[in-house]
Amino acid sequence: MRSAVQNAVLALLLEVAGTPKPGNVDRHRDHPDLRFEQFLAGAVGAWPGLDRLAGDGPLGEGFERAVAGMADQRGGNTQFGALLLLAPLVRAAGRGDLSPAGASRAVEATTVEDAVSFYRAFDHVDVAVGDPPEEIDDLDVRRGSDATPALRERGLSLADVMALSAEVDGVAAEWVGGFERTFEAASWLLDDEGAVGDRASRVFLRLLADEVDTFVAETAGRSAAEEATRRARAVLDGEERGEDLAEEFVERGINPGTTADLTAGALFVALERGLEV
Amino acid sequence: MRSAVQNAVLALLLEVAGTPKPGNVDRHRDHPDLRFEQFLAGAVGAWPGLDRLAGDGPLGEGFERAVAGMADQRGGNTQFGALLLLAPLVRAAGRGDLSPAGASRAVEATTVEDAVSFYRAFDHVDVAVGDPPEEIDDLDVRRGSDATPALRERGLSLADVMALSAEVDGVAAEWVGGFERTFEAASWLLDDEGAVGDRASRVFLRLLADEVDTFVAETAGRSAAEEATRRARAVLDGEERGEDLAEEFVERGINPGTTADLTAGALFVALERGLEV
Repeated sequence: MRSAVQNAVLALLLEVAGTPKPGNVDRHRDHPDLRFEQFLAGAVGAWPGLDRLAGDGPLGEGFERAVAGMADQRGGNTQFGALLLLAPLVRAAGRGDLSPAGASRAVEATTVEDAVSFYRAFDHVDVAVGDPPEEIDDLDVRRGSDATPALRERGLSLADVMALSAEVDGVAAEWVGGFERTFEAASWLLDDEGAVGDRASRVFLRLLADEVDTFVAETAGRSAAEEATRRARAVLDGEERGEDLAEEFVERGINPGTTADLTAGALFVALERGLEV
Repeated sequence: MRSAVQNAVLALLLEVAGTPKPGNVDRHRDHPDLRFEQFLAGAVGAWPGLDRLAGDGPLGEGFERAVAGMADQRGGNTQFGALLLLAPLVRAAGRGDLSPAGASRAVEATTVEDAVSFYRAFDHVDVAVGDPPEEIDDLDVRRGSDATPALRERGLSLADVMALSAEVDGVAAEWVGGFERTFEAASWLLDDEGAVGDRASRVFLRLLADEVDTFVAETAGRSAAEEATRRARAVLDGEERGEDLAEEFVERGINPGTTADLTAGALFVALERGLEV
């Protein structure tokens, strides 16, 4: 019987292994500067931080530690967003309270110090994010720990910080919106049949077909993001081959990273609910 | 900085991910009844047992627990032999003593109770092994915990048990022979260049080209084992494509599992010695 921490690490591994996941590193594809093995090292490296998240210490500290451990390989950022999504889910699971309400309780319990730790996590690794609105420029996450005074002055909890970017970031939207898509996708995984790697691929495509990926919108523009959604639908409808789309998106640098994060979160919930590997 | 336990889990993951490893499950190939994801779950499942191995409790108990955790997926045995090889290596690393001599000290310290736990590990999972010589039929590992009285009566430590099969089992030979091949292969990994997955593939081929795989000899016969060695050499010499050989061996059920175990052990030693991912 795997612990919540083991299931979190396994979810990270199963997410990256699932194939095809068009545009992402997966079992069959690397990015030019980011390889599959680096995801394996990242997931294993995140372990001690995830262990803290399942325990009682501050959530932000556990997250920061998970990110620092994840970044201890040569590829840079592998699964930052997935860890951010997992943080409240693992906290809830550690308390035997893994449900949308339980995860939301973990969100609501976050403090200003958790926000400070969250920003500090950006000191460990480069994460592709867009510019914030001018009025909150002092809260640009890329400032990392330099944003500490602004966070303290404004008295923002980590939940408050997530609410600020929920419109433009699909992971933050989950934090704010009761993890609706994560739990729904977990039920797809549980209701599906066949090998878990294939289920992960299908859930990724369904999530992408349902909603524009905010990471693609940020890094490749809105029209690329809309195209990604449209073409994921075409794969699900049998009008296009997933393998071909995967090759094309990797080549064009269209990387639905937020959809991958949601897939990892859904895998975690599904594993906790009895998904067999 | 990853702990010895993290490096052990990562070594298991990098071993199965390395491709091509002709005849084995790898990043690009499944076996009909054993899938890549099940290796991921197996490696994560082994964690608590590996954690004990790095600590102070009985080595046999840690090994048994690692095997029970590994077996907690639907594929059955994924990396039993690799865990057996890792056990004394992780124990030595946990004591800051990871060297051939340090690992041999861990071997020499094993007791009859460690042997009993080792046999009990076979209760958790089916492992393909051959018939023992008639005079030690009561020590057939497939008896699992039923062999306990025979072990106690004969007063055999786990080191003694390994010595009994060192002739026919390449992992037992490492236990008995100071882990010579494991440490040598670790130096190959460290001296090599390029992505770790590619290095793992090359070290697998070199090990296989150097010595007949005892698992192939056991499961497919001596002539298949000799062919595997000859053809691994041909791949290294550029006379045959590794990918083609991988397809062919999976199809023919030629599975150099002992060579994979040695590769996992070598990856662990190399990671502990600074191999970057």
